[in-house]
Amino acid sequence: MTEPSPETLLRQRLVRVARRQESADLVIRGAQIVSVTTRELLTGDVAIAGGFVAAVGPEYQAAEVIDASGQYLAPGFIDGHIHIESSLMTPASFARAVRPRGTTGVVAEPHEIVNVMGAAGLEWMLAAGRVSGLRVWASQPSCVPASGFEQGGAHLSPADIAHGLGVPGVLGVAEMMNYPGVLNADPQVWATLQAARGGRIDGHAAGLSGDDLQAYAAAGIHSDHEAISEAQARERLRAGLWLMVREGSAARNLDALIPVLRELPRRAMLVSDDIGADWLLERGHLDHQLRQLVAAGIDPLYALGLVTCHPAEYWGLHDVGVIGPGFRADLLLLEDLTDFRVAECWLGGEPLAALQHNVSIPELAGGGVNVAGLEGADLSVPAHWPVIGVRPDQIETYRAPPGSGDTKLAVIDRYGRGLVSAAWTCGIGLTRGAVALSVLHDAHQVIMAGASDADMRAAGLEVARLGGGVAVVDGGEVVAALPLPYGGLMSDAPPAEVAAGVQRIQAALRERGCRLPEALTTLSFLGLSVIPELKLTPRGLIDVRAWTLLEREPLD
Amino acid sequence: MTEPSPETLLRQRLVRVARRQESADLVIRGAQIVSVTTRELLTGDVAIAGGFVAAVGPEYQAAEVIDASGQYLAPGFIDGHIHIESSLMTPASFARAVRPRGTTGVVAEPHEIVNVMGAAGLEWMLAAGRVSGLRVWASQPSCVPASGFEQGGAHLSPADIAHGLGVPGVLGVAEMMNYPGVLNADPQVWATLQAARGGRIDGHAAGLSGDDLQAYAAAGIHSDHEAISEAQARERLRAGLWLMVREGSAARNLDALIPVLRELPRRAMLVSDDIGADWLLERGHLDHQLRQLVAAGIDPLYALGLVTCHPAEYWGLHDVGVIGPGFRADLLLLEDLTDFRVAECWLGGEPLAALQHNVSIPELAGGGVNVAGLEGADLSVPAHWPVIGVRPDQIETYRAPPGSGDTKLAVIDRYGRGLVSAAWTCGIGLTRGAVALSVLHDAHQVIMAGASDADMRAAGLEVARLGGGVAVVDGGEVVAALPLPYGGLMSDAPPAEVAAGVQRIQAALRERGCRLPEALTTLSFLGLSVIPELKLTPRGLIDVRAWTLLEREPLD
Repeated sequence: MTEPSPETLLRQRLVRVARRQESADLVIRGAQIVSVTTRELLTGDVAIAGGFVAAVGPEYQAAEVIDASGQYLAPGFIDGHIHIESSLMTPASFARAVRPRGTTGVVAEPHEIVNVMGAAGLEWMLAAGRVSGLRVWASQPSCVPASGFEQGGAHLSPADIAHGLGVPGVLGVAEMMNYPGVLNADPQVWATLQAARGGRIDGHAAGLSGDDLQAYAAAGIHSDHEAISEAQARERLRAGLWLMVREGSAARNLDALIPVLRELPRRAMLVSDDIGADWLLERGHLDHQLRQLVAAGIDPLYALGLVTCHPAEYWGLHDVGVIGPGFRADLLLLEDLTDFRVAECWLGGEPLAALQHNVSIPELAGGGVNVAGLEGADLSVPAHWPVIGVRPDQIETYRAPPGSGDTKLAVIDRYGRGLVSAAWTCGIGLTRGAVALSVLHDAHQVIMAGASDADMRAAGLEVARLGGGVAVVDGGEVVAALPLPYGGLMSDAPPAEVAAGVQRIQAALRERGCRLPEALTTLSFLGLSVIPELKLTPRGLIDVRAWTLLEREPLD
Repeated sequence: MTEPSPETLLRQRLVRVARRQESADLVIRGAQIVSVTTRELLTGDVAIAGGFVAAVGPEYQAAEVIDASGQYLAPGFIDGHIHIESSLMTPASFARAVRPRGTTGVVAEPHEIVNVMGAAGLEWMLAAGRVSGLRVWASQPSCVPASGFEQGGAHLSPADIAHGLGVPGVLGVAEMMNYPGVLNADPQVWATLQAARGGRIDGHAAGLSGDDLQAYAAAGIHSDHEAISEAQARERLRAGLWLMVREGSAARNLDALIPVLRELPRRAMLVSDDIGADWLLERGHLDHQLRQLVAAGIDPLYALGLVTCHPAEYWGLHDVGVIGPGFRADLLLLEDLTDFRVAECWLGGEPLAALQHNVSIPELAGGGVNVAGLEGADLSVPAHWPVIGVRPDQIETYRAPPGSGDTKLAVIDRYGRGLVSAAWTCGIGLTRGAVALSVLHDAHQVIMAGASDADMRAAGLEVARLGGGVAVVDGGEVVAALPLPYGGLMSDAPPAEVAAGVQRIQAALRERGCRLPEALTTLSFLGLSVIPELKLTPRGLIDVRAWTLLEREPLD
């Protein structure tokens, strides 16, 4: 006979508790219990043992009884698609921002750390998740690097992706961004789809509609989080795709899609995709989205399903997303179902107060910042190169004529390859000093923008000295900095500290003439070779529409 | 680079068809298309290629165009829980009964053939399903044999069950019938639960409510198809279980549960569990249930979800249950959404007319009927044994006093072990002749009932001669017979022939005084040791409540 596993022993205890042969650890009494699958409010004691709900019923005995009269008990919120790295926080710091907002689980797409470190980044995200005080599942990044123009710290083959899909906690393949590859039978893309077949395949159908959307779905893709209009959302739902309604600090689509959610579609959920520390602290996470939905008149019991049982069903997570016997005790006490203020948030029966503030984060072997060659680097710009036009809050750039530049940009390989390129930009507006950061989608090189080559170099060197992060330098002096030592992407500081660090950087840049309201976010996309129109990489300037590289030293 | 799989090549073709770079095989034009996930009716061409839907959109080109104006196009129906063997038909014959009713897929629980043949029975059911013209997935039987009192052709250990769960096409563990074992930490039952953890675990919570239902769900069980009342159904849904509303020839619960379905619960579906050939031909399958729901005023677009996307989601079947690009072309043309008359039913793009009538059924190695020892068997009944009281249309029996019997019963081991027992029954009423059958839940021994020991023996021998089936004998003559040569359980005859055979048997029994309206069904449960109160096995009479065996030759 097989030895009973810890889960078997635990569930046998749940059975005894439910049958009143043993006391529960905790009973939550008197709450209105939200049943998200039947859209009802129920009453009863919720008996919790070993981190699971053992039973919902009258008068259970427990070591601890919490009176929740007048409050609502809901399942913990689940974000079905998020890049934790975009918060600039490790999972543990991120948890400190979102647990008080009611989030108990996320499906993380560790795209950034995997671009830096490959499979080790995925494993690290899951390991860091396990100690975070949040349930962190992952989806396997599908497109690393973003294109052949980018050379980050990793290059995932379909075999690497197949391997990742076998790692416990990995629920499927993440956003299949390379839609031209899907539509045009790219062998690499289709080898990835083949490796993922049978499991979940997350989509990324930005801008696709009509025949191309049908074709993209026909490839066997199951969801999309890029719908930005009512028409796009309806088209995706009607194609049988799961609609991930996105609202985060980088892209805000909820308002536009509320008319669709009013019709209570079955295959919909709310996700955040990318969300900054300051946004989380000021507005919140999924709770913020719920407030918007309910303010718009949508039934809160349906809205709650969008962040509980719906994502659980999509991702095949059978033991979360519902309050019921056998489900994990990931539970929220809410003051009401309009503001969704969280009075308590249990993860596996552990309250908010048990959330560790000094988590020992798993070591990240590698992922440092090596800007070899920067000190003496020539940051001159080839005279014939066009100028990168930058607009506030947009990740697309435009082509401006040579000579129209106001701020110089440089990108240096951070993996020690010594490659560096510089280009002119217009629209940033820095009049003195420089900023450097090691967050540069997707390869996460070090990008520098500034009014002086010397300050740009100094800022880049400071980022390297910090082991990754952001630095503003003026006249050779570091005037603001935010270390991001985890892969050059994440900080283990408390959320408020990270948010304050970002604010300090933005303020320092504003004082120096920068006209971008969210300068760090905008700068961090100036290297992403798959978003039009001009982007800078260590090898040179990418003309995205022409799909060509203008090399620094052009071959003739 | 990985070689492209057949599915990859096929889906690449779908992409080209969707983008109009290639013609489809078939276009269905002009129908009202049922979108079960958004509960809308849509319009457009449905373009089909290689057995999948490539696209839904305006004016696609195809080799064949079908004008479906004025009709409704719906996804094929999926029965999430059925024992195909109960129809007395092989999957191919079963398909001929249900495909014209709109069924394109079933999750078969091959409990009967696995009791006869072990793992080989599961593999056979899947193999027979593959050539049947129906999509046949399976769930792994969890309780074989039903109890230690029964000795059939197989004994599945938890390791056997774990092995079965790895067979392609097996979607999870089937109905966990042994609820006392779940509630009382039976090591064998919990080893099975442990092997199944992470995947789907189907429930069988007959009669459970209150603390025991909570406890049963806390074990990690996901569904139940045994709810017979509104209160039971609500209790299951509120516990987070998926409600499988059952309506078949053996148990009819739909009417009682309609009030619950009126509330449009998310985690519900329709199943049939057990359904006879005559029922299928006269009433139908899931179409019959849909008629009842819509007649009761339930939105047909919700009702259709209960037999399409809901079971697909429960079982993690990502490519069926919806009409959309990338989904299998399992499609129905319906005349209306009240009667659900099926004008056409495609499976993977193949119409009803392509359904094979002479399928080459995979060989069943073993599973024959060996009644060694029957010829000279002593069918006398120990004088002190109580009488088995039989009531029409009930599978529970009652204890009647010695001397009250009217019809003798005998059960002989069909696996060649030579064991035989006899007992008296009251309520059957046979005044002459005898019947024998090799369908006897769950071990499928040969059961005989009759007015003469000689005719009982002769009927049993005739069943063996047929290689399994049913035989009625009177005065030594075979007066009616139905061969069931596949495991002694199933026929490969057309559905009408099987139904007619059953009718002939029932008529022959009625003529001989039998008072049971569904004699074969009632008789086939008289050996099932887990249903009260008295049941007969080759080893002796089981007192189910006392959980004891009255042996034929009691030890003293």
